[in-house]
Amino acid sequence: MTTDERFMRIALEEARAAMAQDEIPVGAVVVAGGQVIGRGHNLTETLRDVTAHAEMQAITAAAETLGGKYLTGCALYVTVEPCVMCAGAIGWSQLGRLVYGASDEKRGFRKFAPAALHPKTEVVSGVLEAECAQLMKDFFQQKR
Amino acid sequence: MTTDERFMRIALEEARAAMAQDEIPVGAVVVAGGQVIGRGHNLTETLRDVTAHAEMQAITAAAETLGGKYLTGCALYVTVEPCVMCAGAIGWSQLGRLVYGASDEKRGFRKFAPAALHPKTEVVSGVLEAECAQLMKDFFQQKR
Repeated sequence: MTTDERFMRIALEEARAAMAQDEIPVGAVVVAGGQVIGRGHNLTETLRDVTAHAEMQAITAAAETLGGKYLTGCALYVTVEPCVMCAGAIGWSQLGRLVYGASDEKRGFRKFAPAALHPKTEVVSGVLEAECAQLMKDFFQQKR
Repeated sequence: MTTDERFMRIALEEARAAMAQDEIPVGAVVVAGGQVIGRGHNLTETLRDVTAHAEMQAITAAAETLGGKYLTGCALYVTVEPCVMCAGAIGWSQLGRLVYGASDEKRGFRKFAPAALHPKTEVVSGVLEAECAQLMKDFFQQKR
């Protein structure tokens, strides 16, 4: 298991926690110096708040841990490609590295806001992609 | 004074509250049925949180007031054109009407994420534009 897979597994745990609360199963963790410094999962229904995406909560938690708002030396692992809102937040945070699992053709930032991230942010996609995507498929299938 | 100007004046009050806290002076209010149901100003420095923009706080506050996450019947007044993150949040909220004062050529969503809003969201710009822009100029001038 690679380091990226190891942290994506923790993001997947968060996604499963969302699923267990009947939330769209997306999870995220922020890592610095090999340590998880922030984590979160989607809570938009529970909190009745469209801004309560996994990434937003992980970013806010990481900044709280660091005592500063910039995440330059950090990596964010998220099970699904961030939306426009989350990509905007990632841009403001000057995140060092973004790693996501499944792509999101309908809502992902790559289509709708390709220049949202800081130019120095490294982007890696497709880590544990099948598992991340399957969780989403399972969720929407059970909703039908 | 038009209705739009009246609510933009309240957003400007919020922006001045940000200024007084040495925050970039942006303020926002959400209005439904002629009533302010959420308000906020930029608090990114105070909270050390890149997500703490005026719009995000006003949206979250309005959803809290309504007890639901969608702002379909609401208008959001904000002194400066929303950034990509805030436009993404506005998109998720299915906001009825967005009214902003000054444009933001550098960070505004119209350049970086023109399709971020819900297709039914009406957009009005330039309300009390000079006053909204002047507050930003004053802030950055004093920072130099």
